[in-house]
Amino acid sequence: MVNRPIGVFDSGVGGLTVVKELIRQLPLENIVYLGDTARVPYGTKSKSTIVRFTLENILFLLKQNVKLIVIACNTSSSMALEEARNYFKIPIVDVVLPGAKEAVYATKNKRIGVIGTPATIKSRAYEREIKRLNSSIKVISKPTPLFVPLVEEGLFYSAISLKISRMYLKDFKEADIDTLVLGCTHYPLLKPLIQRVMGKNVTLIDSAEQVVYEVKELLKKEKLFNRSKKKGKHKFFVTDAPENFLKVAQHFLKEPIKNIKMVNYGL
Amino acid sequence: MVNRPIGVFDSGVGGLTVVKELIRQLPLENIVYLGDTARVPYGTKSKSTIVRFTLENILFLLKQNVKLIVIACNTSSSMALEEARNYFKIPIVDVVLPGAKEAVYATKNKRIGVIGTPATIKSRAYEREIKRLNSSIKVISKPTPLFVPLVEEGLFYSAISLKISRMYLKDFKEADIDTLVLGCTHYPLLKPLIQRVMGKNVTLIDSAEQVVYEVKELLKKEKLFNRSKKKGKHKFFVTDAPENFLKVAQHFLKEPIKNIKMVNYGL
Repeated sequence: MVNRPIGVFDSGVGGLTVVKELIRQLPLENIVYLGDTARVPYGTKSKSTIVRFTLENILFLLKQNVKLIVIACNTSSSMALEEARNYFKIPIVDVVLPGAKEAVYATKNKRIGVIGTPATIKSRAYEREIKRLNSSIKVISKPTPLFVPLVEEGLFYSAISLKISRMYLKDFKEADIDTLVLGCTHYPLLKPLIQRVMGKNVTLIDSAEQVVYEVKELLKKEKLFNRSKKKGKHKFFVTDAPENFLKVAQHFLKEPIKNIKMVNYGL
Repeated sequence: MVNRPIGVFDSGVGGLTVVKELIRQLPLENIVYLGDTARVPYGTKSKSTIVRFTLENILFLLKQNVKLIVIACNTSSSMALEEARNYFKIPIVDVVLPGAKEAVYATKNKRIGVIGTPATIKSRAYEREIKRLNSSIKVISKPTPLFVPLVEEGLFYSAISLKISRMYLKDFKEADIDTLVLGCTHYPLLKPLIQRVMGKNVTLIDSAEQVVYEVKELLKKEKLFNRSKKKGKHKFFVTDAPENFLKVAQHFLKEPIKNIKMVNYGL
């Protein structure tokens, strides 16, 4: 039972930032990852579609016999977490609450910026969680819809990425924030770029570490830690052909992906 | 029989540039449009996925009892036309050959540029068709992957769109082309922007007019013209919730869309 894998999904490659941290902190756990690369991006689509995609992804992972699910996608976490927890028995960790917690720990001047997909920002999920933790904090949010296509294209540090970042982040520079939440698991790949634009005094929050902390707490509570002495196995599924995923995935994981398979749960 | 609708599909709103021209030139024809907005974009995905999406869209339109299909998507036309024509009996009009013809008519200095999605450019479909029509023409191609998200977001003439256009089109300005093929049905919405960057001496080719010419030829040949005296009915299907589609669609059609429905042919 306890050697069942942890299931992780994202709309594309972004969730690998969470997988990387899972591997680092929980090297004995088996992991199954699903990247819905045929339908990426999620963040520009409507709530009903994001809920449907999220439930389909969880069903797919349940069939892989997972013991816990990480929704490593901010759009799904913001838009479909409630439905997912209402429908399914399996413990689910999201990425929004952990990111909000980290941001609240980090801010000194109580001014936090949040960037994310249009769906995530529209949901106001980060604002809600941050205000619940500390109602005196000011939150400034802005959608940055072109960051996902940039990352999916592998344009981490091109001239075009820099121009787009400067335009998107201008408002935050003027708003005197000291903490910026990267509210999309794709964005950590743009960290060097965003840090350069924002300057080194602004703390960038990537929720991966805190997500894995919550995974550990849940495994402890549910007595689900893998007791094996061997290194965990990592299996990857994608819904589009794997070539582009593999190319970009190397930048995330810094380790070769051996076990990858294309699956198709559409018509 | 002849009053059956013409079926048109695209990955999103782009194909409406073709619908607009169909309505203008064939006002008596009934039209069914399918925008696969839940899975947009197509142009960054693999051939096997694009072929699957294309066949699914054609099946959906066949169930709507259409008499002819227009693949109003350059990515599907470049990647999946052969499969579509092999599998299905229904007459199919694509957008690549008409665009190539128009470009060959237009060029004087025999230097043609082509922009499109990564999949369209990778397929070299335009280059093949242009060279087949006139082998002495020089073709310069370049993928412009961020143009589809820009259009789907409705950013037709923002500062960010202008910056991105300038970066993408720099090479074409230096290559001294006199004709630029907008090799994606989304791109005509960026025409004022692209014309501004390229200058007024470069002819921009949008294949819609030529596509409708080929539709008319086929209707004539197959004796399928609608003999009704009434204005045609136009029905729209989308796979994501219709709000965003409707917002952007107004810029394409310049007429209100009344009959729109969300459909779901995924799991």
